Amino acid sequence: MKEKWSILDALRHSRHDWLNKIQLIKGNLALNKIERVHEIIEEIVRDMQHETKLTNLGAKQFAELLMTYNWEAKKISISYEVLGDGCDLSAHDSELTEWCRAFLQVMEQQADMNRESHLEISIEAFDAEVRLFFDYSGTISDENAFMEWLNTHERGASLCLEQFSIHKDEMTVAIKIARKHQG
Amino acid sequence: MKEKWSILDALRHSRHDWLNKIQLIKGNLALNKIERVHEIIEEIVRDMQHETKLTNLGAKQFAELLMTYNWEAKKISISYEVLGDGCDLSAHDSELTEWCRAFLQVMEQQADMNRESHLEISIEAFDAEVRLFFDYSGTISDENAFMEWLNTHERGASLCLEQFSIHKDEMTVAIKIARKHQG
Repeated sequence: MKEKWSILDALRHSRHDWLNKIQLIKGNLALNKIERVHEIIEEIVRDMQHETKLTNLGAKQFAELLMTYNWEAKKISISYEVLGDGCDLSAHDSELTEWCRAFLQVMEQQADMNRESHLEISIEAFDAEVRLFFDYSGTISDENAFMEWLNTHERGASLCLEQFSIHKDEMTVAIKIARKHQG
Repeated sequence: MKEKWSILDALRHSRHDWLNKIQLIKGNLALNKIERVHEIIEEIVRDMQHETKLTNLGAKQFAELLMTYNWEAKKISISYEVLGDGCDLSAHDSELTEWCRAFLQVMEQQADMNRESHLEISIEAFDAEVRLFFDYSGTISDENAFMEWLNTHERGASLCLEQFSIHKDEMTVAIKIARKHQG
């Protein structure tokens, strides 16, 4: 995993992603599918709202991990959404980032090069509680190895495993972050 | 001038710029100005080609300076284009960046807060020779101070002033980069 991106790397990847979106708009416009163009724009705006909300959680390393993950060719592609009113996760940034990075690493070992594997991450960020749902769809080549990993990672300083299910090519994991309350 | 942007800064600014473009497309689409939407898309694609060409010159600090300049509120906004076949400017990166940064700094002192000032930079990058044209349009509050700066900066290790003209609220400066030829 590349540890350090430069500003030029970031702008190159961002430019590439955006040009793909623009091409999609252009293509549908050429076919006079105006309704579809409107939909694409709505999707773009929604994705950007999630990106903004992710940034606003204050967990910088974690946000960078998710926002740059697809920049490198990997077996798993990820997407994410941020639900809830938002909250300040800065105190949990390192722990959360390390957990997710380790989780992604172990999942990359599970996934199959020849098949699309996808991980959808839902972050439910409320002031009172924060949950992360990982919804994986793709090859799981060694369930036992994964279970072993999970056993040693089910509890951290402030995060704990809350839910887990695995079935064939689908897996869901939910973790909860216990937040200290101010005042 | 902020010296170090983070990846999240870069993505935030990039997202902001792109959402403005998307809003422009959306607005014209709502007015059924399809022809205008096509034009906007062409402009976007052209700008991105210049951005790619700028990156490909191999002058990383220089590219970053130009690509991030408008991210901070300044008196002068800049735009740029890269003409020619391109070439490798990596050996001139530091000198070019320092010259441009100093030039922009002295021009910021010239510009007026209450009036729009713009600097258009054309980079003619051929393998045999490289020229940069600076086309400034805006307030020049102290011509003599600028002339003084230019006198002490008209020649560097590999760059030299080639052309200069000033007239009221317009100024053009051209510099040439003398490149060592291989072989």
